[in-house]
Amino acid sequence: MSRTAARLADGREIIYFDDAGARPRDVTDTRALPPRPPATETRYDPLLEDWVTVAAHRQDRTHLPPSDQCPLCPSREGHATEIPAADYDVVVLENRFPSFPAGDGRGRCEVVCFTSTHDASFKDLEPARVRTVLEAWVDRTRALSALAGVEQVFPFENRGQAIGVTLNHPHGQIYAYPFVTSRTRRMLAAAERHRHRTGRSLFADVIAAEQHAGVRVVSATERWIAFVPSAARWPVEIHAYPRRQVPDLCALDDDEREDFCEFYLDLLRRLDALYDSPLPYVAAWHQAPVNGARALSHLRLEILSVQSSPTKLKYLAGSESAMGAFVNDTAPEQIAARLRDVALVAAGSVTT
Amino acid sequence: MSRTAARLADGREIIYFDDAGARPRDVTDTRALPPRPPATETRYDPLLEDWVTVAAHRQDRTHLPPSDQCPLCPSREGHATEIPAADYDVVVLENRFPSFPAGDGRGRCEVVCFTSTHDASFKDLEPARVRTVLEAWVDRTRALSALAGVEQVFPFENRGQAIGVTLNHPHGQIYAYPFVTSRTRRMLAAAERHRHRTGRSLFADVIAAEQHAGVRVVSATERWIAFVPSAARWPVEIHAYPRRQVPDLCALDDDEREDFCEFYLDLLRRLDALYDSPLPYVAAWHQAPVNGARALSHLRLEILSVQSSPTKLKYLAGSESAMGAFVNDTAPEQIAARLRDVALVAAGSVTT
Repeated sequence: MSRTAARLADGREIIYFDDAGARPRDVTDTRALPPRPPATETRYDPLLEDWVTVAAHRQDRTHLPPSDQCPLCPSREGHATEIPAADYDVVVLENRFPSFPAGDGRGRCEVVCFTSTHDASFKDLEPARVRTVLEAWVDRTRALSALAGVEQVFPFENRGQAIGVTLNHPHGQIYAYPFVTSRTRRMLAAAERHRHRTGRSLFADVIAAEQHAGVRVVSATERWIAFVPSAARWPVEIHAYPRRQVPDLCALDDDEREDFCEFYLDLLRRLDALYDSPLPYVAAWHQAPVNGARALSHLRLEILSVQSSPTKLKYLAGSESAMGAFVNDTAPEQIAARLRDVALVAAGSVTT
Repeated sequence: MSRTAARLADGREIIYFDDAGARPRDVTDTRALPPRPPATETRYDPLLEDWVTVAAHRQDRTHLPPSDQCPLCPSREGHATEIPAADYDVVVLENRFPSFPAGDGRGRCEVVCFTSTHDASFKDLEPARVRTVLEAWVDRTRALSALAGVEQVFPFENRGQAIGVTLNHPHGQIYAYPFVTSRTRRMLAAAERHRHRTGRSLFADVIAAEQHAGVRVVSATERWIAFVPSAARWPVEIHAYPRRQVPDLCALDDDEREDFCEFYLDLLRRLDALYDSPLPYVAAWHQAPVNGARALSHLRLEILSVQSSPTKLKYLAGSESAMGAFVNDTAPEQIAARLRDVALVAAGSVTT
């Protein structure tokens, strides 16, 4: 894999990650771009002792452009995109409509394009490309963790319009938060109490219990395991952990990285087979805070979907939105069994 | 106001609240109803130290029936509904598809019909009817708080299909939770720390600060105040408090109840005037837990909407769903100003 950094016309950083060997990445962004948007604000909520980001300029961001206007496709004659190159493998760039202001040590937002193929999906990638994406996440986690003011690095993918995706090109995002997110703080507080009470790791205990119960395990390899948690909040929810407790993506060793590629592709294929159509999902990497509690943390990938049947979505209504009390209309054991079973189909050669 | 309790064919309780004077409520539910659904399960999430309800049977619940099949309209010749009466003012009944199992001390779910008029909306109610609804909430808060196993009573309204409403008839719900919800626990922990640190009430301090700042206040009366919180998470979010600190609806005095009716109707009219169309919203009563922390609590009505412009909805994507870190594309001060300004229009006679 090779890595080449450059700048876009308005000063944003762009980094090419190529699957194999170095390619010349010397094309200049010739667009006349407007100045970067005004700084967003991070506000404190005293009732929940938590941070909320106000980013009013994001109302103007590009919304589902036609595919020949896609800003994440390679540039071509007459259509200069965000990526001033004729092709790319994986590319990371600072978000033009960031949730956090750039350049003043208050966080950063990046976009990760997984492939130059507009109509592809993450699950269509070759394992070698998944490895390049993973190396890009590792690179960005390391670089963003080193920025002043960054407290947590969050690589994620929103997929599907039902989850609010505004660009169809296969891409993910990375938020470098200027605070530790509330779910992470709550989980680490729980892990701290568990360690104090038992001397053990909360995450290791949960993984061992799920492996022992078996009924909610979706897939497992020598180095990774994925299950539907017993108290799943979402119609489809998968937690995937490396078996070895590591705080973040940077700490994965070569075997764990290599093993992850096929493991994750298999999970994504199962998800799309569940209702026989592309499942809208959020895939979210929970990493340790940059400062502190790293020994308590255990890297985890959460995959969540609001799709509760081929035709129904779960809405967050009163109980979830206002009280944080989730009602899940789907039994975790049934979803896990169905995700295991679709594998039998997916493992065959062709399904239409 | 008069109150008459009865039973539906499958044993569920139904209670009529009539605006004025007692009416005979002796009509029998003659339907042959199937047995009540199997018990749901409340599961513990050790990572967030929180409860999640699994209610798989709710997948089968009635979904947006045509209006002549509405189960919440009064019964008529040839169409027996959930309400075996030719008319009603306000009626409360146990939910046929509850999120919590009935009858075993593990919580209860009720439906509150605000009017027998199918096409009406809460904001169309007469102030006297709002008072009847409020008295029904008070009655149910008192009765449900007295049930074994109930830890918190949550009256709320989901309005609009964008929020997942499955029946269009104007109605709300009441969840009697068998646990204290996570947002309440977090807020009371914050209030406890604030009291320890300052000797004062967190909620009173927040209300005083918003009143002093003024810029986010939407409306205020002698006994109630409504504002957009400084760290609002949703495109439209209003917190309304009685000025006097009371733990729950039962503790409101007669003046506060009377004052609330016009105050709330005015708020709802502003919401629908914001985008000149019915706003999808969640209106949620935060009440003190049944047991404990009542002196720390301050009754609050939260109104939340996912509608961020006349045509755009906010989706909870990766940052919100997976990390609990909200990014709000709407500036709280702007929304508050717009909600104050629409009043000028709404206060005039006719719009359109």
